Amino acid sequence: GFARIDTHRALRTGDPEVVYAAGKTTEQVAAIVKHLTSANPNRPILVTRADEAARAAVRAACPDGHLLEDATGRCVALGPLPEIPRGRVAVVCAGTSDLPVAAEATFTARVFGAAVEQITDVGVAGIHRILAARPALDRADAVVVVAGMDGALPSVVGGLTGVPIVAVPTSVGYGAAFGGLAALLTMLNSCAPGIAVVNIDNGFGAGLYGARIARQS
Amino acid sequence: GFARIDTHRALRTGDPEVVYAAGKTTEQVAAIVKHLTSANPNRPILVTRADEAARAAVRAACPDGHLLEDATGRCVALGPLPEIPRGRVAVVCAGTSDLPVAAEATFTARVFGAAVEQITDVGVAGIHRILAARPALDRADAVVVVAGMDGALPSVVGGLTGVPIVAVPTSVGYGAAFGGLAALLTMLNSCAPGIAVVNIDNGFGAGLYGARIARQS
Amino acid sequence: GFARIDTHRALRTGDPEVVYAAGKTTEQVAAIVKHLTSANPNRPILVTRADEAARAAVRAACPDGHLLEDATGRCVALGPLPEIPRGRVAVVCAGTSDLPVAAEATFTARVFGAAVEQITDVGVAGIHRILAARPALDRADAVVVVAGMDGALPSVVGGLTGVPIVAVPTSVGYGAAFGGLAALLTMLNSCAPGIAVVNIDNGFGAGLYGARIARQS
Amino acid sequence: GFARIDTHRALRTGDPEVVYAAGKTTEQVAAIVKHLTSANPNRPILVTRADEAARAAVRAACPDGHLLEDATGRCVALGPLPEIPRGRVAVVCAGTSDLPVAAEATFTARVFGAAVEQITDVGVAGIHRILAARPALDRADAVVVVAGMDGALPSVVGGLTGVPIVAVPTSVGYGAAFGGLAALLTMLNSCAPGIAVVNIDNGFGAGLYGARIARQS
Amino acid sequence: GFARIDTHRALRTGDPEVVYAAGKTTEQVAAIVKHLTSANPNRPILVTRADEAARAAVRAACPDGHLLEDATGRCVALGPLPEIPRGRVAVVCAGTSDLPVAAEATFTARVFGAAVEQITDVGVAGIHRILAARPALDRADAVVVVAGMDGALPSVVGGLTGVPIVAVPTSVGYGAAFGGLAALLTMLNSCAPGIAVVNIDNGFGAGLYGARIARQS
Amino acid sequence: GFARIDTHRALRTGDPEVVYAAGKTTEQVAAIVKHLTSANPNRPILVTRADEAARAAVRAACPDGHLLEDATGRCVALGPLPEIPRGRVAVVCAGTSDLPVAAEATFTARVFGAAVEQITDVGVAGIHRILAARPALDRADAVVVVAGMDGALPSVVGGLTGVPIVAVPTSVGYGAAFGGLAALLTMLNSCAPGIAVVNIDNGFGAGLYGARIARQS
Amino acid sequence: GFARIDTHRALRTGDPEVVYAAGKTTEQVAAIVKHLTSANPNRPILVTRADEAARAAVRAACPDGHLLEDATGRCVALGPLPEIPRGRVAVVCAGTSDLPVAAEATFTARVFGAAVEQITDVGVAGIHRILAARPALDRADAVVVVAGMDGALPSVVGGLTGVPIVAVPTSVGYGAAFGGLAALLTMLNSCAPGIAVVNIDNGFGAGLYGARIARQS
Amino acid sequence: GFARIDTHRALRTGDPEVVYAAGKTTEQVAAIVKHLTSANPNRPILVTRADEAARAAVRAACPDGHLLEDATGRCVALGPLPEIPRGRVAVVCAGTSDLPVAAEATFTARVFGAAVEQITDVGVAGIHRILAARPALDRADAVVVVAGMDGALPSVVGGLTGVPIVAVPTSVGYGAAFGGLAALLTMLNSCAPGIAVVNIDNGFGAGLYGARIARQS
Ligand SMILES: Nc1ncnc2c1ncn2[C@@H]1O[C@H](COP(=O)(O)O)[C@@H](O)[C@H]1O
Ligand SMILES: Nc1ncnc2c1ncn2[C@@H]1O[C@H](COP(=O)(O)O)[C@@H](O)[C@H]1O
Ligand SMILES: Nc1ncnc2c1ncn2[C@@H]1O[C@H](COP(=O)(O)O)[C@@H](O)[C@H]1O
Ligand SMILES: Nc1ncnc2c1ncn2[C@@H]1O[C@H](COP(=O)(O)O)[C@@H](O)[C@H]1O
Ligand SMILES: [Mg+2]
Ligand SMILES: [Mg+2]
Ligand SMILES: [Mg+2]
Ligand SMILES: [Mg+2]
Ligand SMILES: [Mg+2]
Ligand SMILES: [Mg+2]
Ligand SMILES: [Mg+2]
Ligand SMILES: [Mg+2]
Repeated sequence: GFARIDTHRALRTGDPEVVYAAGKTTEQVAAIVKHLTSANPNRPILVTRADEAARAAVRAACPDGHLLEDATGRCVALGPLPEIPRGRVAVVCAGTSDLPVAAEATFTARVFGAAVEQITDVGVAGIHRILAARPALDRADAVVVVAGMDGALPSVVGGLTGVPIVAVPTSVGYGAAFGGLAALLTMLNSCAPGIAVVNIDNGFGAGLYGARIARQS
Repeated sequence: GFARIDTHRALRTGDPEVVYAAGKTTEQVAAIVKHLTSANPNRPILVTRADEAARAAVRAACPDGHLLEDATGRCVALGPLPEIPRGRVAVVCAGTSDLPVAAEATFTARVFGAAVEQITDVGVAGIHRILAARPALDRADAVVVVAGMDGALPSVVGGLTGVPIVAVPTSVGYGAAFGGLAALLTMLNSCAPGIAVVNIDNGFGAGLYGARIARQS
Repeated sequence: GFARIDTHRALRTGDPEVVYAAGKTTEQVAAIVKHLTSANPNRPILVTRADEAARAAVRAACPDGHLLEDATGRCVALGPLPEIPRGRVAVVCAGTSDLPVAAEATFTARVFGAAVEQITDVGVAGIHRILAARPALDRADAVVVVAGMDGALPSVVGGLTGVPIVAVPTSVGYGAAFGGLAALLTMLNSCAPGIAVVNIDNGFGAGLYGARIARQS
Repeated sequence: GFARIDTHRALRTGDPEVVYAAGKTTEQVAAIVKHLTSANPNRPILVTRADEAARAAVRAACPDGHLLEDATGRCVALGPLPEIPRGRVAVVCAGTSDLPVAAEATFTARVFGAAVEQITDVGVAGIHRILAARPALDRADAVVVVAGMDGALPSVVGGLTGVPIVAVPTSVGYGAAFGGLAALLTMLNSCAPGIAVVNIDNGFGAGLYGARIARQS
Repeated sequence: GFARIDTHRALRTGDPEVVYAAGKTTEQVAAIVKHLTSANPNRPILVTRADEAARAAVRAACPDGHLLEDATGRCVALGPLPEIPRGRVAVVCAGTSDLPVAAEATFTARVFGAAVEQITDVGVAGIHRILAARPALDRADAVVVVAGMDGALPSVVGGLTGVPIVAVPTSVGYGAAFGGLAALLTMLNSCAPGIAVVNIDNGFGAGLYGARIARQS
Repeated sequence: GFARIDTHRALRTGDPEVVYAAGKTTEQVAAIVKHLTSANPNRPILVTRADEAARAAVRAACPDGHLLEDATGRCVALGPLPEIPRGRVAVVCAGTSDLPVAAEATFTARVFGAAVEQITDVGVAGIHRILAARPALDRADAVVVVAGMDGALPSVVGGLTGVPIVAVPTSVGYGAAFGGLAALLTMLNSCAPGIAVVNIDNGFGAGLYGARIARQS
Repeated sequence: GFARIDTHRALRTGDPEVVYAAGKTTEQVAAIVKHLTSANPNRPILVTRADEAARAAVRAACPDGHLLEDATGRCVALGPLPEIPRGRVAVVCAGTSDLPVAAEATFTARVFGAAVEQITDVGVAGIHRILAARPALDRADAVVVVAGMDGALPSVVGGLTGVPIVAVPTSVGYGAAFGGLAALLTMLNSCAPGIAVVNIDNGFGAGLYGARIARQS
Repeated sequence: GFARIDTHRALRTGDPEVVYAAGKTTEQVAAIVKHLTSANPNRPILVTRADEAARAAVRAACPDGHLLEDATGRCVALGPLPEIPRGRVAVVCAGTSDLPVAAEATFTARVFGAAVEQITDVGVAGIHRILAARPALDRADAVVVVAGMDGALPSVVGGLTGVPIVAVPTSVGYGAAFGGLAALLTMLNSCAPGIAVVNIDNGFGAGLYGARIARQS
């Protein structure tokens, strides 16, 4: 087999099994999903970075399963997904172009058990927009903030809430954005406390992290 | 005055007021601390990056206060510190040279209300050491992992626990460590999920973050 | 002589002659200032990056002149300084540690003919602070924004005003701040329009630039 | 909707609404433009980074409107554009390959209300060319300088004029040009005063900035 | 001819002749292989970075030769390959996506005379996997460790064995992986001794190096 | 205690215990050495990056032990050092300024059991020098090559020998040497096969690695 | 017109007019060449970075002219080319993949008036190859050295000759070659004196420079 | 001996022997100079990067010799220096702070046999200054151009002369000058032909290179 599929990790952490579809053929993705469902029919599965073809292959592989899908976030999930959410995550997104990363975070947080509230297009260049979103921030147990270009949004959100913030830099931008490096450095150097950072474009990691915080509440 | 001291932020977030002593004179540090205690006698204060001289100035400025100090972590705290901890943070430290950053994290997490268990010298080059620390990891609501050089420890810890991990790269190392950049990139690219990263040497940020997660438990 | 002093440039641009004291001995600074005053008694002179010793040497060299000095901004100016300001510059400063750069900008803008209003300690982690400064922003013909660490402040200011903003990243910070690189990239990638950027710690350049914009009003 | 269109920002700054077409489908661009025109029929709109297909979609969406278009600068503008220019911007361009960025700056400055004079192919390797352009520089209230490769042109222009210069590095070049980084660093370190810098290839930002300066005159 | 083929080097080092097919046409690859076999019929040849077309051309060029091929590692070898292995190399691979680089190392080590044992999908996020592979590590004279993303695996392996480890960073990952730079820096800064590093994705170099160590045993 | 001293690792790998003195006080170094000798009187100890004061403290702590010291390489070793060398390492050094790193490699390789032959001042700018050293290269089981500035020497040595080469970039140089980065990149990209690289200035790691290879012979 | 063609520069320097075809349409290239030949029929023209289509367009545009073409170097030249060479340039090339850059250098040096001797495939991994080329080096007035990957060849050549060496790093390589950066840094830090460096892949610049040196002989 | 002093290299290239004093003790410098003079009394010696103490040691070591010294350039030369210059080098220097590097270039070029004309403080921000220096440029066989900060001067000089230009970036500047990197990149990307670049602050290398070109005239 082309991969040592780790069915024990899921049990150990209490989380779904995750398949990262980027760089895998649709055949490989479908075969892994099939293997996982037959090995552990009661364990949910999340497939990320799955384009339309990969998602179709998953759909075909699991004709009868409970299937949740998000085209913007390029994700699909199978199996007995969490029914009663544990805790609440707010996913805050700076600009329209950051939406795919935000959608990946939202989808992942849900599959990992959280209730999610998504707030979009609240970049700091129009500060009234994020100020208007304070009620949603106040309701959350964890906040995921997604921003490209200058990556300034988490610093502002950090001044508005006392719950942990997971900052996700995106590769949106050009020139001296250097593929997300500018936003990444901004977030690591935030003048507001209570911010931790995941890799550029890693909506999956942020959603999982937010859900893990929220479920402690 | 040389600084617009923000006595409202503490109230807003429910956290102590923090003074970052690096780049300030001992006189400035003492004056800020005095101002804060007289403005809000019931609010705790944390002073970080305070060398022996700065800590002495704080001691002199507050002769009667409850005072907690840590020389390794270069921190001092004043005032009515939290008595009953809310949640538990494990602070895990790879090597002896990373201790000052780990101590800053431990001290900060305590001042922000968490019970803290510190586990030191468990670098991945002797894998039995971190494996032996699993019971402490299992007890924790959040884990802070401090490592310099290769920064590999969070990736291993990430496979051993399902609670959120806050990774702190340190500037320990030489040559291609590039002042902590190597460890920072390692942690951002961790192959284990559930890891978020703060700035190089930012023990304060990690301790605060860990405590904020833990108090939700 | 050790320098080809360009007495014509001042005439050409209508601006004071500027001496950059960093890397020059106090004797060299004094000699240049003496030469300039005798060559053009009616032309103002600005000396920047001048420590206390260099400023003392300038004072000694020009016992009778009109002399303006700023210790925080490490600047001194001589000669017939502008009396009636042409236009107004707001200098906005994120944190206490950024003050020397802000002071250099303020001093320079004044010597180049602008009225200046300085607003300090209004970092984005407490957003109410910069919002409270809107009246000063509304009065200005140009706004200089000085910030280190995450460098996020210009993006917020950019959403609050329609006049040109000159952003100055500072080297304040540590770790992944990389000596001001993080703030520089943030500002170059600002999601708000109307922002242009000068070199790290270049308060002089920003003050001059702000004054040149303001005097067109 | 896929974007929180900010119709208030335009009113606040007195500037047209801007749509950044890169990374949007032609359908999205057309829909946004339609929405904006119906919401505020009297407000001008600028669409940047719009390829031929996007520009065609805009044309089709607004059959009766006043429409201005520039293929080189990949821009299109709609609605009641400014009739009497406020101030004058000179757009100076080093080489033929920098023309698209210069055209974007020129078009934007016009749409934001300035009279623009464009001077092209005056790179510093033939210094007589920029010297010959001095009359145009002397007429301007602000100068935009566009250059790739070594990015040296703003430093020379900075010695020829006392009005504010907006420098735009371009990604033109190869090898150690590193996608515009070389030119960007050159401009940030210019030995001439009076230069501020925008992001690599950001002709839009430079044109807007130039117009904002010029309209104060 | 387009290349000065060095038939003496092979004799000097006792190793096969190597052809790097990347950036060469299939015709060039076939012609070089033909020239080498006719010049030295008894010398083995290794062709690396050969896609299916290049491998087909080699097959066609050498209809009668002993031919060994690996599609995953994009390699083909010809001629009298070593029959009795000299020493043993373990090739350890962190994730599924690193397999092409690991396969290149395995194939190369075999063609250079070593017995090779390949262990895959043993990334540090599930530490039991590499611990389970200790017997294979104990049998080896040299260990090649292939990992992308965080590149943490060699540090763990370095604590488990006293034989020389050749670490190969791969370009697997995204964002702050920076095309393998993150993994490269991790490996250069390993906190475990006994690790030396080759270029990103250089499975060939690692396999050759492992075989050269192993044949001394 | 300030460090979890790992007396088992030495037994596991058959190598001396190593203490890295940089960043430790002389008291800490002496205490660790004392602890190690009393815990395992028959196990050798190597102390690296030890300045004269640290070495004096070690001497004082172990008045009766077998003690080996090297001032250039800033190393000291104690205890029952290997008597009959296992294999032979050549340490080749490009320039006079690289000698401290080469001496650290030589000393370490000896303490780890190898016979060592050191060849100095054979930089590639005078190619006859390294060519004259071929007999020593031919005698060796492993070759350590130490070079700063351009780091070109390993590429030449790689064409002269078929045994494994351990390349050590040094921080010798200025300007675009970037603290050893230039030499590091050169060595990682060597056009000669059979070269693996350790961290900048890591003479210790290279000596240990060379000895581990050599002892297999 | 799309370009201010500088017919005076050629006269000023005594060199051909040069057209850089990269990023221009074949129509633009043909039009520029036509314009130049009609403006100055007696002045030679060099077109670089011209693919087959661009070279065909030049051929068609100048049916009767003296035309010299090189497919490997992607160059074409027209008009009264120099007949009696002034001085002699050796172009030395490390590997087969560097040939296009070496060919561009050779072609350019010839068009700028030098006799050129090209020596290929003499990388330092087989040092006898460059040693065998010493007679050609001894005949030359300037030496151009082209190398990618480690870029070590100029350092060796610098020890063999006392004439000026122009080093050209190429983008050949992968991984930590970083598109030629590794070779560039190597050459800038060469331990041999008498080496100056041009941009990555800039065969044109090196050939021109070599010819300018040689013609002084 | 601590260094393999290469008395043959001088004979081979017809140039003086060079000692690089940085990182050597004054005793080492004096000993090397004594050894060289006794080994080859008729061969000139150049000592660079020699502070006042090192230069005094050289003076003391050679009481009777012909001795030439330059405090600004931190150089000293001994022995039968060239009497009749071969060719002429112009050394052009942008700013006062670049003078030490320019002085090193001037001194070296003289010791290597050239007549040198030094032109200082002609930065591009006052373009009339370099234009006024054209006669000196026209007289030269090679031009060395020294500049820090933006490094723009060589691009302008490249348009004024047809002789080879050696560009020397200096580490003068701050912030985004990155220790000379900005100037280095500018020069490598110069839009003017005929420019080759040496390492940051390498006045020695540029002077030697200029003299080697000039002596061919
Ligand atoms: N979008 C994503 N970004 C980063 N890591 C991911 C992503 N999706 C899944 N992963 C990680 O990749 C692992 C699965 O990788 P694989 O075994 O190659 O399918 C999971 O355990 C996750 O930790
Ligand atoms: N060690 C530290 N590292 C990073 N940030 C800190 C540290 N200590 C305090 N801070 C932050 O600095 C702020 C206080 O800065 P200041 O007003 O300059 O004293 C606090 O609100 C914290 O958010
Ligand atoms: N060419 C451009 N480069 C950078 N920013 C731009 C450009 N064009 C528009 N913008 C900015 O992008 C904003 C619109 O973005 P969006 O809402 O995604 O269409 C505008 O308010 C401008 O500030
Ligand atoms: N200022 C300098 N910068 C760079 N290289 C230099 C300098 N001065 C001397 N060198 C080189 O250093 C070599 C002498 O180095 P060393 O044998 O260590 O004294 C000479 O052959 C020169 O090539
Ligand atoms: Mg928007
Ligand atoms: Mg330890
Ligand atoms: Mg503050
Ligand atoms: Mg042109
Ligand atoms: Mg896996
Ligand atoms: Mg030497
Ligand atoms: Mg070859
Ligand atoms: Mg000057």
